Amino acid sequence: MSSYYPDDSVALHTDLYQINMAEAYWRDGVHEKKAVFELFFRKLPFGNGYAIFAGLERVIDYLKHFQFSESDLVYLKEQVKYPADFLEYLKTIRFTGSLYSMVEGELVFANEPIMRIEAPLVQAQLIETALLNIVNYQTLIATKASRIKQVVKTDTVMEFGTRRAQEMDAAIWGTRAAFIGGLEATSNVRAGKLFGIPVAGTHAHSLVQAYKSDYEAFHAYAKAHKDCVFLVDTYNTLKVGVPTAIQVAKELGDQINFVGIRLDSGDIAFLSKEARKMLDEAGFTEAKIVVSNDLDEYTILNLKAQGAKVDMWGIGTKLITAYDQPALGAVYKIVSIENEAGEMEDTIKISSTTEKVTTPGQKKLYRIIDRENGKAEGDYITMFDEEPEKEKRLKMFHPVHTFVSKFVTNFEAKNLHEEVIQNGEVVYTIPALADMRDYATENLHLLWDEYKRSLNPEEYPVDLSQKCWDNKMRNIQEVQDMVDQFQQSALREEGKA
Amino acid sequence: MSSYYPDDSVALHTDLYQINMAEAYWRDGVHEKKAVFELFFRKLPFGNGYAIFAGLERVIDYLKHFQFSESDLVYLKEQVKYPADFLEYLKTIRFTGSLYSMVEGELVFANEPIMRIEAPLVQAQLIETALLNIVNYQTLIATKASRIKQVVKTDTVMEFGTRRAQEMDAAIWGTRAAFIGGLEATSNVRAGKLFGIPVAGTHAHSLVQAYKSDYEAFHAYAKAHKDCVFLVDTYNTLKVGVPTAIQVAKELGDQINFVGIRLDSGDIAFLSKEARKMLDEAGFTEAKIVVSNDLDEYTILNLKAQGAKVDMWGIGTKLITAYDQPALGAVYKIVSIENEAGEMEDTIKISSTTEKVTTPGQKKLYRIIDRENGKAEGDYITMFDEEPEKEKRLKMFHPVHTFVSKFVTNFEAKNLHEEVIQNGEVVYTIPALADMRDYATENLHLLWDEYKRSLNPEEYPVDLSQKCWDNKMRNIQEVQDMVDQFQQSALREEGKA
Repeated sequence: MSSYYPDDSVALHTDLYQINMAEAYWRDGVHEKKAVFELFFRKLPFGNGYAIFAGLERVIDYLKHFQFSESDLVYLKEQVKYPADFLEYLKTIRFTGSLYSMVEGELVFANEPIMRIEAPLVQAQLIETALLNIVNYQTLIATKASRIKQVVKTDTVMEFGTRRAQEMDAAIWGTRAAFIGGLEATSNVRAGKLFGIPVAGTHAHSLVQAYKSDYEAFHAYAKAHKDCVFLVDTYNTLKVGVPTAIQVAKELGDQINFVGIRLDSGDIAFLSKEARKMLDEAGFTEAKIVVSNDLDEYTILNLKAQGAKVDMWGIGTKLITAYDQPALGAVYKIVSIENEAGEMEDTIKISSTTEKVTTPGQKKLYRIIDRENGKAEGDYITMFDEEPEKEKRLKMFHPVHTFVSKFVTNFEAKNLHEEVIQNGEVVYTIPALADMRDYATENLHLLWDEYKRSLNPEEYPVDLSQKCWDNKMRNIQEVQDMVDQFQQSALREEGKA
Repeated sequence: MSSYYPDDSVALHTDLYQINMAEAYWRDGVHEKKAVFELFFRKLPFGNGYAIFAGLERVIDYLKHFQFSESDLVYLKEQVKYPADFLEYLKTIRFTGSLYSMVEGELVFANEPIMRIEAPLVQAQLIETALLNIVNYQTLIATKASRIKQVVKTDTVMEFGTRRAQEMDAAIWGTRAAFIGGLEATSNVRAGKLFGIPVAGTHAHSLVQAYKSDYEAFHAYAKAHKDCVFLVDTYNTLKVGVPTAIQVAKELGDQINFVGIRLDSGDIAFLSKEARKMLDEAGFTEAKIVVSNDLDEYTILNLKAQGAKVDMWGIGTKLITAYDQPALGAVYKIVSIENEAGEMEDTIKISSTTEKVTTPGQKKLYRIIDRENGKAEGDYITMFDEEPEKEKRLKMFHPVHTFVSKFVTNFEAKNLHEEVIQNGEVVYTIPALADMRDYATENLHLLWDEYKRSLNPEEYPVDLSQKCWDNKMRNIQEVQDMVDQFQQSALREEGKA
């Protein structure tokens, strides 16, 4: 790919309509108006009770380097036929706005702003597609990984999915997200280098096939590697593979560290139990059994229920592609825009699909944490000028079923939006990846177990403040009035005609 | 990302176990043995009757640039602790082998070799992961696109999925694959530039929200763009959006080219029919209706059955992620290896999961085409020294249910493997992308309609030649003998003990 254009740029990694709108804004002179956009999703993935946010580091890198390259501009001129004056302007665009965001590893729920972008309209518009592309995928995979980690508990889990990932970026950014979500290692060496994730792996069937014998292959492997995990299912797991692994481990004794065996096919429950017995009887009670083969949280739960003897799990396809729901539907919506007088005004999107109606205005997001038990009572979205951290008693009510409500007292209101970029300058220090993972793990303690169940969890409250709710209703009413007025004047026109 | 390592290399984009095996081969001195690997999948995706191969161009680029970079080697030394002598060797590795492959746009079926790699063992091993990563995804998406194109027939279909793609590479390579599979355009501008795919797009809801009025937004858009498609569902599609689009189109008359309107929410069947009436009544009978909103071949089929008035389809999430089956399970298996005497010997992988048993030996792949009706009779896998093109009468039989057989005469045996790389040199000219798409479209005429049905298609025959089948059975028997012998000698050992 690198060979196509040396100056391939991510600025061009956007939908054509963003550039079309940029031109419209610019020609009309509204491009520098300050706009506020929010990034959020409407539904948690996998029927899970929470999601784990990931993707910020990549977003920061993208915004820092946002700039159309020479070959981008040539392409836009010659192939897409944009006029020269607009391209001259496009060439000058950098991201000079501000980004407020959750940090990576944060628990995130439906309909709450993960990111808030405050920037000149044209900039905020152009970055939409890439931001969604990045955040949707990494958040999806971090969440899937967290679900898997919840099931395996203290066993080791490794990401093995590169060959089934949806192209190269997915393999490396997906494994990074999986690490944040709770996994311990990856098979992808490039991801290990780029992100400092521990790498893991032993050998494949091809090694055994190349030697046409488990025995010779294991010896050849042991000649090169001190730590040995032997893959035992090339020809026959229990009759040849496991006995040969044991034989070679005995022959080589202290010359190697016989870590264990790997199973990659057949009935894992049965084979792992039989293999465990054979290893134990041979005195290798510390030898680990590593398994892989189309695993996910559902198969692992079942294997564990059947008493499978597995110490380490390698997860491929089902994790790296989020197989049971391969897309998170995060969207990016304008909520506020500067008017002619320089004041910020609300904007709203109405839809007959009611859950697609946006919540207008500049807002803040808090997590309300009970000081007594340390558990989260829910998340709380306020207008920008509210300060729930100063309240003694907070009324929280469901934003759709408004009669469902509760009062909370003795709480901490934690602002979930970090200041990341301020007028184009990065003001946030990206933590180490392991710290993001620890943060995600700690955060899970905030949740009652009922929210963490992998099947049919309780719904965690994400509520609007009274002021925020009233403001949304007022905006909806204004649009309805506008629609009515439009119809009435249309009827008058028809009467005249 | 580019900021992390200026010399980020795709050679490192592999599983750790490949490098572990490379070291084992090298230390044991077998790394230069000639090996033959085949790349194939075992099951067609989406329950479809065929797949469309894509990914070769990216594979060629990868193999041409295969080389570990300085920072790769530093990482492997310092973090993964590979010994210096092995890294000195690793540094020298380039791909000097040969690649035989189907061309992009080729029809491909389960259990037939898409690619054959003949290379020194160590090289063929190291490239496995990336080849699968590339071919799996692009072939999956080309196939999904072809399914969609089968349903829309002559309507225009566009790829709109970047925001939901699994990271950036998926967005661009996925849209390329979708184009090969039959789509007409993409919204991704970078993909347009990189691959010469026509780009398409108009404006989003945010434009209307920024102006707080359909009327003002459409006028602002029209000020900058001659060709206008107005998005009409920001506030109210039928009461405000469509009437406003019509009003603006009338006001501006010849100043713009009113292409049509776009619907992105609500009931597409109902709204499109109503909008069509309104446009027609206003005299805009040529105006197009473009729709998008979680579409795939199933929803399109249903919308068409309900008489939806749609001219152009924008397909997002469901295509770019292959939502109903987000991974193709292609594998890469060693089938032949050089022995001590320098002769090629078969290798086989046995599994209790019977469909995982590989077909050993160096093979060729033919498509048998009836000269009378121009239809394909099936694909035919032979040993390397067979020449079915010289046969007058061919017996084709099912490789599992062997009693299912037929004789074909008056046929063309088309070799499906192109010589792409010969001893490290690219000897193949990559066609233009549009030619790949045309090739895919033409190829579909080879198939009877029964193979192209999107639900429960007939199974297209992929048969082994008698010689190939006999050879496979012989190999299986040899492994069984080996397993039996192993057991007997183990029993003798036990008797002694």
